[in-house]
Amino acid sequence: MNERFKKFIDQFEHQKIDAYLITDTVNITYLTRFPASESWLLVFRDEIFYITDARYTLEAKQGLQGITVAEYTKSMIPRVFELMGQMDAYALGFDDRQVTLAQFKEMEKHCPAEIKLVATGDVTEKLRWVKEKWEVDLIRKALKLNLKAYRYLKGVVKPGVTEKQVFAKLESYVKKAGAGFSFSPIIASGPNSCHPHARVTSRKIKNNEPVLIDMGMDIRGYKSDLTRMFFLGKIPPLVQEVNDFVAESQERAIKKIRPGIPASDVDYEARNFLEQHGLAKYFGHSLGHGVGLEIHESPRISQHNTTILKEGMVFTVEPAVYIPHKFGIRIEDMVLVTANGCEVLSR
Amino acid sequence: MNERFKKFIDQFEHQKIDAYLITDTVNITYLTRFPASESWLLVFRDEIFYITDARYTLEAKQGLQGITVAEYTKSMIPRVFELMGQMDAYALGFDDRQVTLAQFKEMEKHCPAEIKLVATGDVTEKLRWVKEKWEVDLIRKALKLNLKAYRYLKGVVKPGVTEKQVFAKLESYVKKAGAGFSFSPIIASGPNSCHPHARVTSRKIKNNEPVLIDMGMDIRGYKSDLTRMFFLGKIPPLVQEVNDFVAESQERAIKKIRPGIPASDVDYEARNFLEQHGLAKYFGHSLGHGVGLEIHESPRISQHNTTILKEGMVFTVEPAVYIPHKFGIRIEDMVLVTANGCEVLSR
Repeated sequence: MNERFKKFIDQFEHQKIDAYLITDTVNITYLTRFPASESWLLVFRDEIFYITDARYTLEAKQGLQGITVAEYTKSMIPRVFELMGQMDAYALGFDDRQVTLAQFKEMEKHCPAEIKLVATGDVTEKLRWVKEKWEVDLIRKALKLNLKAYRYLKGVVKPGVTEKQVFAKLESYVKKAGAGFSFSPIIASGPNSCHPHARVTSRKIKNNEPVLIDMGMDIRGYKSDLTRMFFLGKIPPLVQEVNDFVAESQERAIKKIRPGIPASDVDYEARNFLEQHGLAKYFGHSLGHGVGLEIHESPRISQHNTTILKEGMVFTVEPAVYIPHKFGIRIEDMVLVTANGCEVLSR
Repeated sequence: MNERFKKFIDQFEHQKIDAYLITDTVNITYLTRFPASESWLLVFRDEIFYITDARYTLEAKQGLQGITVAEYTKSMIPRVFELMGQMDAYALGFDDRQVTLAQFKEMEKHCPAEIKLVATGDVTEKLRWVKEKWEVDLIRKALKLNLKAYRYLKGVVKPGVTEKQVFAKLESYVKKAGAGFSFSPIIASGPNSCHPHARVTSRKIKNNEPVLIDMGMDIRGYKSDLTRMFFLGKIPPLVQEVNDFVAESQERAIKKIRPGIPASDVDYEARNFLEQHGLAKYFGHSLGHGVGLEIHESPRISQHNTTILKEGMVFTVEPAVYIPHKFGIRIEDMVLVTANGCEVLSR
């Protein structure tokens, strides 16, 4: 049993459970380090079952070590309670943020009277918040390629070229590098940049306007996420001014980051600075989000999230100002929380 | 208000509701014909609200006609009940297969005493079962490209070439055609083909062995899904025999298809034929599944699904036999249920 499972099972006592059902594929992949699909994981203190159907049984048996593959035919839930009985377990934990109401009703229907269902909220994802060194190394690799791709784009993003053309060149560059995107890139020129999640259009990039590019790479499941602004020709004074405020707000937020403070303090640092310059009303999203096996994961760096930062967390810091119908500026880097502060991974 | 919304709202009376909350992005996209993201849809009899956050508000306002964009800041659920109050509605339907248990608890927490929450199960996806003509036309387009790609692969799949090399060539072929995959293709040679959902490996394709290729295209959101077997050199007698049985079981199933019969009858037709030849135990999945905006959607063509087939449904028919550690044969086509039978769309 690997260290991740040990940490996971360590929580059973506190949760007063002796079994846990994981239905989320990314969490299953995280714990097993096997690329799971169409499966659930049922974890007991001394045995782990990978529940899947005949389509996946053989490869699961070949790929999983120390985990029993339990095939189901019609429905997964009865199989879960069969195994609960077989293992003589009485309290089944599950993540109510991952189980649908219909699944829960089905669980209740099949659950024998002597077994208790315990909704625990997040138990697995918390383990993912703090990255191991090899995970950070994969993220570093993804970021390195990301930065290389931005250097490549300097020769591509020119007046007269369309966003779609930039996209096509970027895509073939990334493919040649043997990598993939961690999400569909945003290439937003001129007024399009005022949409935080703009779609790539056929708009021709013009001189004297900002171009917002947001992209991420995926290296063996681990992801990067970076936004850079490209300025062509002369930067209009308002664009320059807003850009400087956004950059300064990012610097302030980054200086604030250290273990022991709530995530909301970091968001506040950037948002408050923008507020002082009348710009917070144009900053409609959170300051950042965790990145790892998923492009958006915990911890969210938002006004409302009081999660305490810990050494080893990796997240984005991406303040922005979007002036409707005019332009948007977003500057996004990724940081690793260190013992005394943070390391900006993307510079 | 488009026809889809009208059909959707027609169900309110039967469900005894006067509002419906849709949380699934594909269903929102289906109803609005707007590429939704990070949004919920709250439908009343005479007004529809698209609930999203500041990142998406502007583009939603520009892209949605006849639908009110309602921005939320911290959390979507309180916004839903604000709008319920504003619209004087008292019974809120929702799909309990799409809402998590944690979301449901949050809904209960924010729900005023005078408002009833009504779990309805599937209401939206049922509308998607029967395709409109233009939807079938997009699927036909996807299939046409799919078949072209298979013709192209005839010159690529050769002894000595690895699965990954085939994948790379296929990918660039599809990209040049201006399309994308609807899922990551399966290219499984020799014994790899006994895994129904094999991953693409570095294995070199050999002479005298079957190669199973399963791929699909995506044309403006609508998908195709086809599996073809490639045989190199001399076909071993057992492979030939199994292939013939699988092909025959597919023919029998296709002949069975017509409006008015349960989906399970079609599955039975193929499975029973394989059973008669001692092969059903090697056929561990359902006979087929609906295809449309999602690669796997209703109706499932399985042993247990008694959904009655209707004219306009589009689904796969994909009997298979997987002999562990040896080889697998799957033959997959897509059919459209017609007034008196079905049309095989992929021939």
